[in-house]
Amino acid sequence: MKGLLNEIDRLLKEKRYFEVKNIVTQENAADLALLFEELFGEDFDEQKEFMILFRLLPKDIAADTFAHMNSDMRQHLIGMFTDKELREILDESFIDDTVDLIEDLPANVVSRILKNSTTGERKAINEILRYPKDSAGSIMTIEYVSLHKDMTVSEAFEKIRKVGVNKETIYTCYVTENRKLIGVITVKDLFMADEDDKISDIMETHIISVDTHEDKEIVGNMFQKYDFLALPVVDKDKRLVGIVTFDDAMDVIQDENTEDFSKLAAIAPNEDSYFRTGIFKHAKSRIVWLLILMISATVTQIITNKYEAAFAAVPLLVSFMPMIMDTGGNCGAQSSTLIIRGIALDEIRFSDFFKVVFKEFRISIMVCSVLAVVNGIRVYLMYDHNFLLALTIALSIIATVILSKMIGAMLPMLAKRVHLDPAIMATPLITTIVDCCSLFLYFNIAMMIFKI
Amino acid sequence: MKGLLNEIDRLLKEKRYFEVKNIVTQENAADLALLFEELFGEDFDEQKEFMILFRLLPKDIAADTFAHMNSDMRQHLIGMFTDKELREILDESFIDDTVDLIEDLPANVVSRILKNSTTGERKAINEILRYPKDSAGSIMTIEYVSLHKDMTVSEAFEKIRKVGVNKETIYTCYVTENRKLIGVITVKDLFMADEDDKISDIMETHIISVDTHEDKEIVGNMFQKYDFLALPVVDKDKRLVGIVTFDDAMDVIQDENTEDFSKLAAIAPNEDSYFRTGIFKHAKSRIVWLLILMISATVTQIITNKYEAAFAAVPLLVSFMPMIMDTGGNCGAQSSTLIIRGIALDEIRFSDFFKVVFKEFRISIMVCSVLAVVNGIRVYLMYDHNFLLALTIALSIIATVILSKMIGAMLPMLAKRVHLDPAIMATPLITTIVDCCSLFLYFNIAMMIFKI
Repeated sequence: MKGLLNEIDRLLKEKRYFEVKNIVTQENAADLALLFEELFGEDFDEQKEFMILFRLLPKDIAADTFAHMNSDMRQHLIGMFTDKELREILDESFIDDTVDLIEDLPANVVSRILKNSTTGERKAINEILRYPKDSAGSIMTIEYVSLHKDMTVSEAFEKIRKVGVNKETIYTCYVTENRKLIGVITVKDLFMADEDDKISDIMETHIISVDTHEDKEIVGNMFQKYDFLALPVVDKDKRLVGIVTFDDAMDVIQDENTEDFSKLAAIAPNEDSYFRTGIFKHAKSRIVWLLILMISATVTQIITNKYEAAFAAVPLLVSFMPMIMDTGGNCGAQSSTLIIRGIALDEIRFSDFFKVVFKEFRISIMVCSVLAVVNGIRVYLMYDHNFLLALTIALSIIATVILSKMIGAMLPMLAKRVHLDPAIMATPLITTIVDCCSLFLYFNIAMMIFKI
Repeated sequence: MKGLLNEIDRLLKEKRYFEVKNIVTQENAADLALLFEELFGEDFDEQKEFMILFRLLPKDIAADTFAHMNSDMRQHLIGMFTDKELREILDESFIDDTVDLIEDLPANVVSRILKNSTTGERKAINEILRYPKDSAGSIMTIEYVSLHKDMTVSEAFEKIRKVGVNKETIYTCYVTENRKLIGVITVKDLFMADEDDKISDIMETHIISVDTHEDKEIVGNMFQKYDFLALPVVDKDKRLVGIVTFDDAMDVIQDENTEDFSKLAAIAPNEDSYFRTGIFKHAKSRIVWLLILMISATVTQIITNKYEAAFAAVPLLVSFMPMIMDTGGNCGAQSSTLIIRGIALDEIRFSDFFKVVFKEFRISIMVCSVLAVVNGIRVYLMYDHNFLLALTIALSIIATVILSKMIGAMLPMLAKRVHLDPAIMATPLITTIVDCCSLFLYFNIAMMIFKI
């Protein structure tokens, strides 16, 4: 990549455009988009060369490269396009990519795009834009191949040949009647059939489809489960309105994962990549939860205040606070993360509540036994055979581990039950809650054992 | 699903097998596998009905259903297969699914499978098994369509028709010469070309391929980037040895994500789902890190011990320990999670080290200013205008936030640099490290301000 970059940079500066064109025409669109980013960065200083390079690309590759670029770069490019160029790019683009683009752009640029689209495109774009964010409708495309049930296999092939070039996928075709989806057939099925077979005889009629308003996370899980190339999207009257293709499903899966990672670390999710997000936005997306958690820590503070007598009598107790708190936090995080992940993958449902809680309870018994014994012995040996201290620590660990695993298992499921995102019951929140409980238990156990 | 389950259960008990067959033949294999799991659970009590139901399936659907089952159920089924049945299932299965199966089975079952495979299959299986776990070679299949460069488009179609039924994908075909990969062509390209066009004239020669030993995580990222249906796998002499298809890539992406979620929560990764993992295995995969972290907390304990004088003089200091520690842990977790995710998605590389550290530094300045001001005022108002205490807390927060963000940003990148998995530098480990540093800073600041 680095070598190619320098080569192109040099050739552009020497105005050897023919050679540049030969090189870039061979590259994959995804790589070309990266190449533009690397060459021109975020500043677009060398505007002229930027446009020259883009104009050297054949139209179809240009549209595909455009679709792979980040939104800043696309917005910048649109600003420099003539109306004719914009029309050409839109013409070569898939509708779902255009919708993606529009969602990121300021209103004046959007209206310029709509002005340069055909009436049909404009209608389709507006239709897709109307579906709620995160719904199947919002990520679908309308560019699929539809067949008629009375066609023969060879007529179907002919239709695919004729309309296929502009379709996102031709490998799964949809059979409709009065706009209702009545069958699905793959090109592989067509190949394996006789030329004269009728579509209605060979099509799959047991259709797995998804509703326009279905959550896109569920769409992602369906692709995962069924290994489909494309999934039909139907309205409430079972009319076919579009399809979701596997590449968009893959993007959904990765985006949902990135979102969950953010939430688990108490960061407000953000659609841009790390570098593309400015430091103000980074700071903002982190401060909110930090503030909430910091203020919640007031409870821990008040609890600790109450037990001043305990650590005044046995100052050593203070030094074990971090260990007790961290062990609780870690145990809670383990349970909550597994449950949150299980819910996201649709492996765990609310109906499994008691099964999960009982399982976590048994696991916590095993975990706390090992930790309590090891740590009890450690403390006993480190602190001059202070049996009472060792006992306090061991019992506190038992109580903390069991409690934190119960909290960590229950909260994400309860969140799901009340239609909150389970991922907000993440490590930091669990830690804060567990802190309060574990310190309360710890000091009480200590006061009982030391008879304070 | 529930209704279907009860229906089948009832029909099976009434021995109305013909009706059962009619129902199950219409279902998707992924759903059928789930249906088997739901009907027969983990105990396989009703062995006889289990086999009856399986034998009712048409052979191709049976093989596909078998591939979707969990390994316990497959092992159980193999035990009940006759040799003839096993041969039939293997015959209908894709090689990569058989390899998947073999990897999970005990040796005696594996040898029975190999005994019932054809010589060619056995050779292919052994070949794939030889590649390292987590390599591209280990997830590839050898069932692809290969074409010759001198074929015409219509000859290519003929070949696809003839060999296609047993191939994992027919939509991307590979052109080889002396086993070397010289071109790639999609069925869509073939459709758009003339019947007499020669393959060598229309094939794509700028081939994106992957080495047999490449990490499968990178393979997943390539699918994400290029939106491929399949990716060719080549050996070091550029000979085509197999292909990875998008459905396997999707599984890799989800598995890698699940693994990262586990690691971020200090759980040893585990390939089975939550419910399918026994409680002993759950406990074992959690205890290791908990023990390591608990023992590491000895350092915090020693640090806190050292500052007994400080909290003996100002007992209030103890009650702020949890808040300081948690804020540090959360800040560190935010940075480390974002960096770990960025590295996994190949958006952040080690060469970005200083760029990342500088970015995190600027972000931490913004974050700590807000947190310090809010918390300083809160403490000042809550504790009778105790200015020194408020100042101590505010300064400690500033130090803790900056330090923890620096540690959280640097450790994952350094781990990557020395070829460790960045994900081990996860929240719990960062928290433990940050705890030590932040308590040390906190007590020192307190002793300076209160002149202890």
